Amino acid sequence: MKRRQFLAASTLGASAFALASPVLAQTSPELKWRLTSSFPNSFDIVQETAKVFATAVAAATDGRFQIEVFASGEIKPGLQALEAVQSGEIEVAHTALNLFSTHEPALAFATGVPFGLNARQQASWWTEGGGRELIDEVLKPFGAVALACGNTGAQMGGWFRKEVKTPADFNELKMRIGGLSGRILEKLGGVPVATPAAEIKPSLESGALDAAQWAGPHDDERLGLQKIAPAYYFPGWQQGSNALHILINQAKWGELPANYQAILTAAASLAGTSMQAKYDARNPDALKKLVVDGAKLKPFGGEIMDAANAAANAVYAEISASDPQFAKILSAYMAFRNDEYLWFQVGEVAYDNYLVRARARG
Amino acid sequence: MKRRQFLAASTLGASAFALASPVLAQTSPELKWRLTSSFPNSFDIVQETAKVFATAVAAATDGRFQIEVFASGEIKPGLQALEAVQSGEIEVAHTALNLFSTHEPALAFATGVPFGLNARQQASWWTEGGGRELIDEVLKPFGAVALACGNTGAQMGGWFRKEVKTPADFNELKMRIGGLSGRILEKLGGVPVATPAAEIKPSLESGALDAAQWAGPHDDERLGLQKIAPAYYFPGWQQGSNALHILINQAKWGELPANYQAILTAAASLAGTSMQAKYDARNPDALKKLVVDGAKLKPFGGEIMDAANAAANAVYAEISASDPQFAKILSAYMAFRNDEYLWFQVGEVAYDNYLVRARARG
Repeated sequence: MKRRQFLAASTLGASAFALASPVLAQTSPELKWRLTSSFPNSFDIVQETAKVFATAVAAATDGRFQIEVFASGEIKPGLQALEAVQSGEIEVAHTALNLFSTHEPALAFATGVPFGLNARQQASWWTEGGGRELIDEVLKPFGAVALACGNTGAQMGGWFRKEVKTPADFNELKMRIGGLSGRILEKLGGVPVATPAAEIKPSLESGALDAAQWAGPHDDERLGLQKIAPAYYFPGWQQGSNALHILINQAKWGELPANYQAILTAAASLAGTSMQAKYDARNPDALKKLVVDGAKLKPFGGEIMDAANAAANAVYAEISASDPQFAKILSAYMAFRNDEYLWFQVGEVAYDNYLVRARARG
Repeated sequence: MKRRQFLAASTLGASAFALASPVLAQTSPELKWRLTSSFPNSFDIVQETAKVFATAVAAATDGRFQIEVFASGEIKPGLQALEAVQSGEIEVAHTALNLFSTHEPALAFATGVPFGLNARQQASWWTEGGGRELIDEVLKPFGAVALACGNTGAQMGGWFRKEVKTPADFNELKMRIGGLSGRILEKLGGVPVATPAAEIKPSLESGALDAAQWAGPHDDERLGLQKIAPAYYFPGWQQGSNALHILINQAKWGELPANYQAILTAAASLAGTSMQAKYDARNPDALKKLVVDGAKLKPFGGEIMDAANAAANAVYAEISASDPQFAKILSAYMAFRNDEYLWFQVGEVAYDNYLVRARARG
């Protein structure tokens, strides 16, 4: 019986209890798992999210199911999270699946893609639009199960040393930007560069970089780029949603009693809700501080947005040509997006636009 | 010991187990609670939400904590949900706290108020902006604890027999609209009417009503008003957020073992996430069907929005004059709103606006 392996045989209490009440012994085993995050501690809200998840699991199981949280690099580099879960070396990861889109492009849809769904729409696609089932198929060869667990919301478009006024200004622009967004920048004539966090500031100072995309105001504040590359562009066309997931080794998941599976699922939801709430609560102050400290807020012009959108569609078409799974998910995802914006235009966006205008007028 | 009352003494298995392992007996008692919803079954997504909550609790407790879900009217009328929980006659309700704002105006902030936070901002205010603590104070005299559990997102502005082009068109307008929104309509010169769902259509046909606000496309479709009052207005200034809560009798909550409290909290989050996801997934199709069937989508003009906003502020000032608790929460809530829209303008709204425009162009 596979479930037996979860009994903490070392504790006499648990063994005695197992004899007295075998059903509960199976459903509330003592477990210790490790969670590796793909993010360093400097992404404080993301780390708090993984801890909220682990704390909620421990609280719901009366401390019987303990998940120890490690930041990127503590037990595994962030980019090895999927591999570590796949091998079963580590039971669970907290990660952005688009980090692995170089291996498997379709995984990007789990996180959100350039000019894709916004954060709320992404959550709807996941549970109600068939997203989870589509990503389950993509994850099957990786032997992993994904639970939705958080979002940053829409990110910023990045820090630029000089203003960009037309699509031509992206020509030969050296920008720290990754994944699909990097390929889109290439289509615009730019040069995507993979720059680690600590090197972004010196690279902008030396001219090795002309621009850098990172996240939103709360996380960007740590980089301190507002004096070197003060043009702070929006909207972040590359990331309307940045959905994270709790990734669990498929075999370990399958061995869990059903009540533990239910507890992990609900705890991931609770932690995910806390993540979006924290970003939404902390971004305004961070944005104010950045502006006071020199950041110049700039909207990307319509021509640039249209050029980037066209470039994104060209990249999607290229990948689709040789990747039927990507093509299938792209089609479902974008159809869902178009329907969402049909409704959001009327329901949400009209409401938000009025409140934005009313606020600006005081 | 109060916790003992939660032991299902009738089952021999549980008693034997209690002797063998008293700690777990306290932390995983067998419980049966009843949940009364403030909404009828016709609000199918809302009912599903209460059932997702109950199912998640049962699943996480291996069936030991059962919550039976009743729609409005089955065991209690919807508007008696707070009273029933307060008395302890019913352990838990799924409700919109603004339904009770006639008794206690400050409760409206738990749900969202006219020209207030949108759904995502409301969730952020609740956990990160001090909202939960403020509403806890308001709920204390009612002996109830609230867990956030769902949102419809922004609603529509209502169905109108004739177009409204200026604020003067609201003069003597008889409209089905309730709570704070009704008071705002009065300020605009209109006449708020409390019309039950089944009477809205005949009242619009007979001229007893000129207009009716209900919810959003998915729920509105059931009313079938698109041929009688075809002007379907947006945005729903009265309801940018319609946050629901799981309301639990304070004493019953206090008696729960900590693991059950953790499970209820996480289950409410999971159910709440599913609610927003379902509304977002089902509203687009409902909107399309309504338009095919005769609904004419109309934006409220800027003059009307400004007049309604000014009327809302006047109503808030009136209530604040005699209700210091309302005044205190209003001030915190609106300060949070202004900060949120400072950031949303840049992060979310700019992204959404581009996608809306791009979609419209095909």
